[in-house]
Amino acid sequence: MGEFDLIARYFTRPVQRAALGVGDDCALLRIEPGMQLATSADLLIEGRHFLSTVAPDRLGHKALAVNLSDLAACGARPLAFTLSLALPQAEAAWLEGFSRGLFTLADAHGCELVGGDTTRGPLAINVSIFGEVPAGQALLRNGARPGDDVYVSGRLGDARLALEVFRGMVSLPGEDFDRVRLAMECPQPRVALGLALRGVAHAAIDLSDGLLGDLGHVLQRSGCGARLDVDAVPRSDDLAAQPLALQRLCTLAGGDDYELLFTAPAAKREAVARAARAAGVPVTRIGQVEPEPGLRLVDASGQALPNTWSSFDHFLDPSRS
Amino acid sequence: MGEFDLIARYFTRPVQRAALGVGDDCALLRIEPGMQLATSADLLIEGRHFLSTVAPDRLGHKALAVNLSDLAACGARPLAFTLSLALPQAEAAWLEGFSRGLFTLADAHGCELVGGDTTRGPLAINVSIFGEVPAGQALLRNGARPGDDVYVSGRLGDARLALEVFRGMVSLPGEDFDRVRLAMECPQPRVALGLALRGVAHAAIDLSDGLLGDLGHVLQRSGCGARLDVDAVPRSDDLAAQPLALQRLCTLAGGDDYELLFTAPAAKREAVARAARAAGVPVTRIGQVEPEPGLRLVDASGQALPNTWSSFDHFLDPSRS
Repeated sequence: MGEFDLIARYFTRPVQRAALGVGDDCALLRIEPGMQLATSADLLIEGRHFLSTVAPDRLGHKALAVNLSDLAACGARPLAFTLSLALPQAEAAWLEGFSRGLFTLADAHGCELVGGDTTRGPLAINVSIFGEVPAGQALLRNGARPGDDVYVSGRLGDARLALEVFRGMVSLPGEDFDRVRLAMECPQPRVALGLALRGVAHAAIDLSDGLLGDLGHVLQRSGCGARLDVDAVPRSDDLAAQPLALQRLCTLAGGDDYELLFTAPAAKREAVARAARAAGVPVTRIGQVEPEPGLRLVDASGQALPNTWSSFDHFLDPSRS
Repeated sequence: MGEFDLIARYFTRPVQRAALGVGDDCALLRIEPGMQLATSADLLIEGRHFLSTVAPDRLGHKALAVNLSDLAACGARPLAFTLSLALPQAEAAWLEGFSRGLFTLADAHGCELVGGDTTRGPLAINVSIFGEVPAGQALLRNGARPGDDVYVSGRLGDARLALEVFRGMVSLPGEDFDRVRLAMECPQPRVALGLALRGVAHAAIDLSDGLLGDLGHVLQRSGCGARLDVDAVPRSDDLAAQPLALQRLCTLAGGDDYELLFTAPAAKREAVARAARAAGVPVTRIGQVEPEPGLRLVDASGQALPNTWSSFDHFLDPSRS
């Protein structure tokens, strides 16, 4: 199978909304007047962002999901994406699974593939995604204000728990492992929640590097600090059954959560609850923005905790697979 | 140096036109009413698209140039780009050179870096580029009509000649080699020509896989064929000094030219010449579109030549480094 066959067979579908899709030098998108284009890119490398054992349909899902999550964090509506794929070989079963996982998620969000690039090489996947947001309404990292509540969506830490199982640091019964592995391999981007939070949240970010690090980005950009109730961070029953230190590692510095972290003024608590209901995603209040810079961690009893967790960094933490 | 330091130090500059640049979950771009967004992506892998010995500033140039060339082929004006970079390690000298080459070309085309991703991994570079084109005015592959002249810009084949030198198949004196190597490593995207050809050319494509293959894409999309005068294909003095069979291989199936191939009706010959002068790029008429499908090659004496050259395909031609 050649490069052009491969593209034609697995990655070419008629476009619905784009002016021009796969097959020319460029794709063409229409952006409605009054809208801004929101764009983001994520590059996934075998052995760093996913294990070689991952099922191809889950990998296709995840490659798009992490990008949809970036649109969600900005409150942008998905439009389209491009896919750049380096593959060691063109293997039909792999391509069939990968493209199925990719398009199933794409269709669920009305986000269409409009172009990209395919080449031979060590497995690497770059998705660039495009969404639209009314001018001036994007949720940004720099909008947090002292007094804001700090929220997260969903539950944190299962992806890291699964990674610890893969590393042989934790043992879980098969059924429990399947659940946390699903969290790692098939994150659900919170697009509907991001849209519902426009005009409600002051600031938002998606959780990819770990709660403490990502909250740190928001606080730094916003020029303030926060108090965080570490025991209030929502977690699954699987994670809650683990030792407390492991729970805290996974929820605070786990990475790969792809939930939304956002802040909103206390006066908007009812609006936040409505947005969460509308999106069908639980949200949990886990702290408060404060004027003094820095992050103050407290446990359920209000006792201060030292911040001994570090955020994930691809160049500072080469040990993480 | 950590991931965030690396981004801050080498890849963060204030944006001029974009609504939001590097540092949030998404970048935000304004698209003027009446304009369509043109987007393309190219993934470059070490050992396949570039040699490990390439100077980092030239690699930075090329990673953006091949994408600007896609905008040029559509007649789109460059706006912005994102960069996804997998690096074996964060090495200051490499990053300094790479970013300098990248930004020098970006500045020359008013195209700003607005986001991306950085990770550790085998060297891989994906650029996604964004341009704008008035709705309905993009140059496409499917617009060629019987009777159209077929043109190429610049000179073809030097990049392939350089590759053959690297492969040890051809020997060139140092100065000559430096020139053809520059063609391979620092292609000049024909953005001004693409803009000048709007409303003049019927169809266009950029030459990345070789003239015969890329012309084949245009003809297939347009549902017609062509006669091509292989000896009329413009080439450098360096290439013209080589044996004829090598000249033909390099000009017809060389790849990596990043010149524009376009068709225009005979009635537009003067307009084509004006566009070429305005853009400061020579263009050469090398054939004619014909109603019968297929490609008919003739030499300078009008003698038919068999088409024994094949277009480059990343999955069918694994031998090419």
